[in-house]
Amino acid sequence: MCEAREAMSATQSPVMKEIPPKSEDLSSWYTAVCLKAELVSYAPVRGCVVLRPYGFALWERLQAALDVRFKETGHENAYFPLLIPESLLAKEGEHIEGFAPEVAWVTQGGGETLPERLAIRPTSEVIIGTMYAQWIQSYRDLPILINQWANVMRWEKATRPFLRTLEFLWQEGHTAHATEQEAQAEAAQMLGIYREVAEGTVAVPVVVGEKSSSERFAGANHTFSLEALMPDGKALQSATSHELGQNFSRAYDITFADTDQQVKHVWTTSWGMSWRMLGAMIMVHGDDRGLRLPPKMAPIEVMIIPIVRGEEPAVLAAAQALAQELRAAGRRVRVDERDDKKPGFKFADADMRGIPVRIEVGARDLANGELVVVRRDQERGAEGTKVTVARDAIVTHLATLLNEIQASLFAQAQAQLARGLVTAEHRDDFLRLCRERAGLVEIPWCDQPACEAAVKAETSATTRNLRPLGVDQQPARCVACGEPARVRAYFAQSY
Amino acid sequence: MCEAREAMSATQSPVMKEIPPKSEDLSSWYTAVCLKAELVSYAPVRGCVVLRPYGFALWERLQAALDVRFKETGHENAYFPLLIPESLLAKEGEHIEGFAPEVAWVTQGGGETLPERLAIRPTSEVIIGTMYAQWIQSYRDLPILINQWANVMRWEKATRPFLRTLEFLWQEGHTAHATEQEAQAEAAQMLGIYREVAEGTVAVPVVVGEKSSSERFAGANHTFSLEALMPDGKALQSATSHELGQNFSRAYDITFADTDQQVKHVWTTSWGMSWRMLGAMIMVHGDDRGLRLPPKMAPIEVMIIPIVRGEEPAVLAAAQALAQELRAAGRRVRVDERDDKKPGFKFADADMRGIPVRIEVGARDLANGELVVVRRDQERGAEGTKVTVARDAIVTHLATLLNEIQASLFAQAQAQLARGLVTAEHRDDFLRLCRERAGLVEIPWCDQPACEAAVKAETSATTRNLRPLGVDQQPARCVACGEPARVRAYFAQSY
Repeated sequence: MCEAREAMSATQSPVMKEIPPKSEDLSSWYTAVCLKAELVSYAPVRGCVVLRPYGFALWERLQAALDVRFKETGHENAYFPLLIPESLLAKEGEHIEGFAPEVAWVTQGGGETLPERLAIRPTSEVIIGTMYAQWIQSYRDLPILINQWANVMRWEKATRPFLRTLEFLWQEGHTAHATEQEAQAEAAQMLGIYREVAEGTVAVPVVVGEKSSSERFAGANHTFSLEALMPDGKALQSATSHELGQNFSRAYDITFADTDQQVKHVWTTSWGMSWRMLGAMIMVHGDDRGLRLPPKMAPIEVMIIPIVRGEEPAVLAAAQALAQELRAAGRRVRVDERDDKKPGFKFADADMRGIPVRIEVGARDLANGELVVVRRDQERGAEGTKVTVARDAIVTHLATLLNEIQASLFAQAQAQLARGLVTAEHRDDFLRLCRERAGLVEIPWCDQPACEAAVKAETSATTRNLRPLGVDQQPARCVACGEPARVRAYFAQSY
Repeated sequence: MCEAREAMSATQSPVMKEIPPKSEDLSSWYTAVCLKAELVSYAPVRGCVVLRPYGFALWERLQAALDVRFKETGHENAYFPLLIPESLLAKEGEHIEGFAPEVAWVTQGGGETLPERLAIRPTSEVIIGTMYAQWIQSYRDLPILINQWANVMRWEKATRPFLRTLEFLWQEGHTAHATEQEAQAEAAQMLGIYREVAEGTVAVPVVVGEKSSSERFAGANHTFSLEALMPDGKALQSATSHELGQNFSRAYDITFADTDQQVKHVWTTSWGMSWRMLGAMIMVHGDDRGLRLPPKMAPIEVMIIPIVRGEEPAVLAAAQALAQELRAAGRRVRVDERDDKKPGFKFADADMRGIPVRIEVGARDLANGELVVVRRDQERGAEGTKVTVARDAIVTHLATLLNEIQASLFAQAQAQLARGLVTAEHRDDFLRLCRERAGLVEIPWCDQPACEAAVKAETSATTRNLRPLGVDQQPARCVACGEPARVRAYFAQSY
């Protein structure tokens, strides 16, 4: 019977034909899989995408993982206006300079030309800072720990689903504190939460560090980031956390009376993760057959596929009964009941959509009290990919298997990252590795913008993030320019 | 001890002084309570508000109540772009005519003037219909049942928190069906869900019916609405559900090959509820002391107030232990630990914020193994408002009490609605009742726009919604104009 099923299976199925092999052309594969798996559609407005139900369900799972952690750490959600008056946006000099080229402007409303242009928020430090100035009077009002789930807009030229679109969905946290130490601890805490979700939920391993001055958020003193490595050797910034110092509190006059009666400026942070994280997940885990979703992210953990030829109501009923039982056990499960598709098509379709486990339910299996369980995380044909499980044992089997798949996808991604973490000791090697997109190329670095600009001009690579030199580290020279090294830096081309 | 506490209590507290009595000036009361309870702040952009954490938590509870019901009935969430090109918006004639005066336009982006104006969505029929035209080919693709949680923008002149703001948060459902019957059933189903949530969760009773042609959604064949009655006798439209017929599918070319191979236009619906529902909740339930929140909506169901004079660590510890125990039992609970506020202030503050139950924890109560439990839904001093409960029985007591409060607020609101449901048999009476804002004034009505316009000119009242004449009803004349009646109509002034 297994052989018969393999014959039905879909090496040449229409599901697969439209997706070029990932290994040959990551970029085409990525776009094809995003469209074919119905995560997104291109919208009839330039540079924007529609997040379709299957894509939105991924976003909902990421949201839930983050939101529960935000709330556990004392943050509350709120909502601030979409539009920011130009005069308000302009108060923090670096910030407006950084964002102005990317702003979309509303100039007309209610049939009239507006007296002042209104920016669609590219980020909300400005409007939130303005409100904090009203809300905060005393040290008793601090800290303020607020998060917002919102759409933002940045007028980009080139766009790709999830990675770069004019409008995107994200969360942005904005906090205000009485002391610099508290603000530092907050920025570090949120970076830790991002790492926990990226690695523990999305199964995407990251390197964590501080951004160089040229890559820093416009208006921040320190920006920290999560960087994931894509299979083409390019890095993808997956979240950032900023120590804004007193830059915004001075520009927007956010002050408080401290315990010593002195009026002081607050210390603020901001931090964000967007649907870009889903782009990282797709690229890191996917294979030639399509998506591979970590179970904790999968909207559908288990697809049940009835093996029927013509009318077999008993098999369909058994599939539905199984689905009910699994749902009662807390599993996210669906039955592929389409009557115009053959099982082989359905296998390939479930694979393409990245569903972690499929269960095949056939008449003979039922008679034997068995189910055929196929996991998505391994190469087709690998040992243990397809097993027969006693019907009675399916609930516990799945609980274990889904944990295994989550761990296995993370382990595979870790191995991929480890292969892409390379070091260079000589300038020529370093530049070659950067040009060839060998991965995250780590060197002792001078931390000078001019050096970074020179490397970028030669290789298109920039620093992704920086780590301190080890305390026991020998005095070293910058591999790129020969000046004394101050930090260790990851260089890479990036999305 | 109870007397001592009453003395501490806050008839003249600063919490209350800033809120004018609801009974004397609903409008000032409403605005004051929205600001003072920290639901919203005015934003530094005209006609927009910030939804502060306490207000957003109310929105999250409403979202959750709706979202679970949408999903149970087979709907999926998705996200469509904020911006709609003008040429696209213009394809459905009635729709653009209805919305154009309220649109905000983006005309510049990325430092350049755009070749075409882009509307910030006032609603998303157009962009979603355009996508449906791409996604739907066959009857197998139907129905499509999608909901979107989103911000939308309508350039209004006069604005009030929740009731009318330029930008607001809502959900909008958009579905496409193979037959008119299915679309009708969908619109009716969603109206039923809205009613269930309005009455069962938000505890706001509503009248349900169809809108007149002049009050109908721009582009709809039939619009159905939920109308709540405010204490000033004005109606508040709280949700709408539209049968769009084939108007949008013809304008945006949404077709499918039916089982009979014929290519047909789909039948669409749309339906929405916004944060306006929160405005109805505030006005219907609130009293002179501030908000009164139905327990199912309350972000904090129980406020624990330690009764301490100076340092009493045992009382604070007991309050925290109680909070832990209640949280473990699934309650949303907080301890008011502020050390710069007296208990009397905290009582008034919890009342003002509408928290359904407060628990007072004092040293003597603890020694007696008791807690003082005060419910918010009744008049101060009413029998049973303040009771002593054995510490051991608190979890079960609260579960019962919160259900009672939910039911009691709904019953109070039902009585209020019943008082405002009036009928008129003569034209003069009818016009007087409309002018005096007696409530929802029900009459047999001719269903003619000219008659509605005449009533509006004389009284500012319009039809809120319509119901069929009873089948056993005597032939009747329109009370407003004397022509034959075709329906029964509720007239009222409205928000």
